[in-house]
Amino acid sequence: MHLGHLVDKEEILDKILVAVFKAPHSYTGEDLLEISCHGSPYIVRRVIQLFIRKGARSANEGEFTLRAFLNGKIDLSQAEAISDLISSTSKTDHQLAMQQLKGGVLNKIRSLRKKLIEFSSLIEFSLDFPEEDDSTYDKTQLSKFLIRIKKHIQTLLDSFALGNAIKEGISVVIVGKPNVGKSTLLNVLLNEERAIVSEIPGTTRDIIEDEIIIDGIRFRFIDTAGIRNTENRVEVLGIKKTFEKMQQAKVIFYMFDATNFKEKTVVEEIQNLHTTYTDKTIFIIANKSDLTKVKDFPYVFFSISAKKKEGIQSILKALSNTIDRSMLQNRPILTHIRHYNALHRSLKAICNIEKGIQENHSGDLLAVDIRQALESMGEISGEISSEELLKNIFSKFCIGK
Amino acid sequence: MHLGHLVDKEEILDKILVAVFKAPHSYTGEDLLEISCHGSPYIVRRVIQLFIRKGARSANEGEFTLRAFLNGKIDLSQAEAISDLISSTSKTDHQLAMQQLKGGVLNKIRSLRKKLIEFSSLIEFSLDFPEEDDSTYDKTQLSKFLIRIKKHIQTLLDSFALGNAIKEGISVVIVGKPNVGKSTLLNVLLNEERAIVSEIPGTTRDIIEDEIIIDGIRFRFIDTAGIRNTENRVEVLGIKKTFEKMQQAKVIFYMFDATNFKEKTVVEEIQNLHTTYTDKTIFIIANKSDLTKVKDFPYVFFSISAKKKEGIQSILKALSNTIDRSMLQNRPILTHIRHYNALHRSLKAICNIEKGIQENHSGDLLAVDIRQALESMGEISGEISSEELLKNIFSKFCIGK
Repeated sequence: MHLGHLVDKEEILDKILVAVFKAPHSYTGEDLLEISCHGSPYIVRRVIQLFIRKGARSANEGEFTLRAFLNGKIDLSQAEAISDLISSTSKTDHQLAMQQLKGGVLNKIRSLRKKLIEFSSLIEFSLDFPEEDDSTYDKTQLSKFLIRIKKHIQTLLDSFALGNAIKEGISVVIVGKPNVGKSTLLNVLLNEERAIVSEIPGTTRDIIEDEIIIDGIRFRFIDTAGIRNTENRVEVLGIKKTFEKMQQAKVIFYMFDATNFKEKTVVEEIQNLHTTYTDKTIFIIANKSDLTKVKDFPYVFFSISAKKKEGIQSILKALSNTIDRSMLQNRPILTHIRHYNALHRSLKAICNIEKGIQENHSGDLLAVDIRQALESMGEISGEISSEELLKNIFSKFCIGK
Repeated sequence: MHLGHLVDKEEILDKILVAVFKAPHSYTGEDLLEISCHGSPYIVRRVIQLFIRKGARSANEGEFTLRAFLNGKIDLSQAEAISDLISSTSKTDHQLAMQQLKGGVLNKIRSLRKKLIEFSSLIEFSLDFPEEDDSTYDKTQLSKFLIRIKKHIQTLLDSFALGNAIKEGISVVIVGKPNVGKSTLLNVLLNEERAIVSEIPGTTRDIIEDEIIIDGIRFRFIDTAGIRNTENRVEVLGIKKTFEKMQQAKVIFYMFDATNFKEKTVVEEIQNLHTTYTDKTIFIIANKSDLTKVKDFPYVFFSISAKKKEGIQSILKALSNTIDRSMLQNRPILTHIRHYNALHRSLKAICNIEKGIQENHSGDLLAVDIRQALESMGEISGEISSEELLKNIFSKFCIGK
């Protein structure tokens, strides 16, 4: 690290620190300079202008990370993990990104792929020299291995639902008639969480409106138009939208006013929800419990007063429990749709290999499917990559990363 | 510089770079660590929380610079220059801060003060040992030196008007009847300048609304209520405010509509401005020159079309010329009111010494005034400082600087 003046002709621009990273011991694997100047927009602009005048240019989105990948410093899934790490906002986000950066998902796939390459070579060998030995590869062994590989891929594919939900935030849709206290509840939830995260001044501004983090997991709240039978066309459209949002959600809050409801209607609506949304967690919330008491309703039932902030903690706790934390322990979790798609294609190719073996296909036909599986698995780490794929990935990065 | 993982118990928080600065070769002169982590608000919060849990605390405003001062790494005027440097937004701002950081203003004062200390010792010596030699200090020599010191201080005091205007931005008040095109002109001026500074994408957001930088000097525009004779009380108050702003400005733009004005009124108003604001530069601007021509008016006269962007360059050029750039060449410029006040007190004390010599005051009376002058001059560098003074200066810094 060097201290000195940055000089433009006669003019001293700034007193700066320069860190020198010599290849290959740098982020990109190339020779790198990192300049720390004083944080004035004017100075930063002058410094950048000076370097551009001397022949430098601004980096493209993700160019540093792309270079690190191209120079073999990191693989593609680690590059994506770096982007995830930077945009992480909760403990679990961060944990998943860190795991992926360390190669969590990939190590397993890489070792499975290596094994598959061995089989592939044996098959190709027996294709090239059929006279040498017909039994250079053991079909039974290959079949057994294919079952193992399928199981691993399936577990990873299954983890995507959770991984993606954690990355995007678990969506919670709040439904109920107008004036039952939906917004009050949302505000109370947001405030409760703000009080938790703002131990350090200045962190509050990072919280995105309508998102809260409970026990390290991000929940995204979606307010909706009230549901009721109506013939008003605009309202029907609004309600249609509500149903769409409920379809995409993981959790549904059904709220009603404990001081003003028809038991028959509420029970009907609850049963309707459960029939329609079998894969969702549904919370039944009776608000204004400070004014009256209601008997228990079926499914997860809460009696709260949003206004008096009573019963809120039990909702937070139950929300947190909707996530199976055991899934997060020491198990690789898929968080990228790109990985999911590539693994899905691998699985399809592997099923084709299995089918080919059962139907006694020739070695060269099997080889085609094996190559397809290897290619799809290789896409995740970037061992197999195209210019378009790289452009797609790195254009999502910010400039200078 | 070290690369490694930051670990909280079992959990890897981030892959970080740590720069180690060993005392006294650091900003504050103490042992210092600088940690570079990934730029996610979540990670930054976790890293800070970890260190706080381990016994660290957040720095106060300007605490690093205060420590640098207390450890003798920089003097007080340099500390202030660092704050100026960070908040500099124009070439001239930056140049003045850089000059002060290098000790521009101070070097002269310091050498003058040193000389004054020598005289002071001689006087104090002759006080302590009057029998030794009555002529240990030469009154004529001291008087000559006092004239020199007064001249230097006066030059510095005179430079404050310019230095302060550059630091705060040269204020330009735009006056004229409603609908003569004041806002259009302002927008055109702002846009012209935006086009100049935005060679590099992303710099535009740093521009503060209603301020433009011309040839490296910041101009601050102030829009006003139209001036006219009225008996409406609210309007009279608005006009009073306009007059106050004009009083504080360095430049006045007087605009009128070339297609719709009474020559007698305009001439009267212009003459009025010149009689009232003798120390200001007054630009007479006839707008809508594309629709009609007007004859020249006295004083700096511009005929423009704000709408068609005609004649704007000549206004920018003339504005830039209102600053005497020769003043900025190789001459220390006072930019801080604190320095101005301290130098003003020094000047007063020095005048008292001169008076004392003329009136043949005794050495111990002279010594009191000399000590007063030394103290005031010492305040600028911080050789003389109080806790309150330091608190005052560093509380204006941002946290972590």
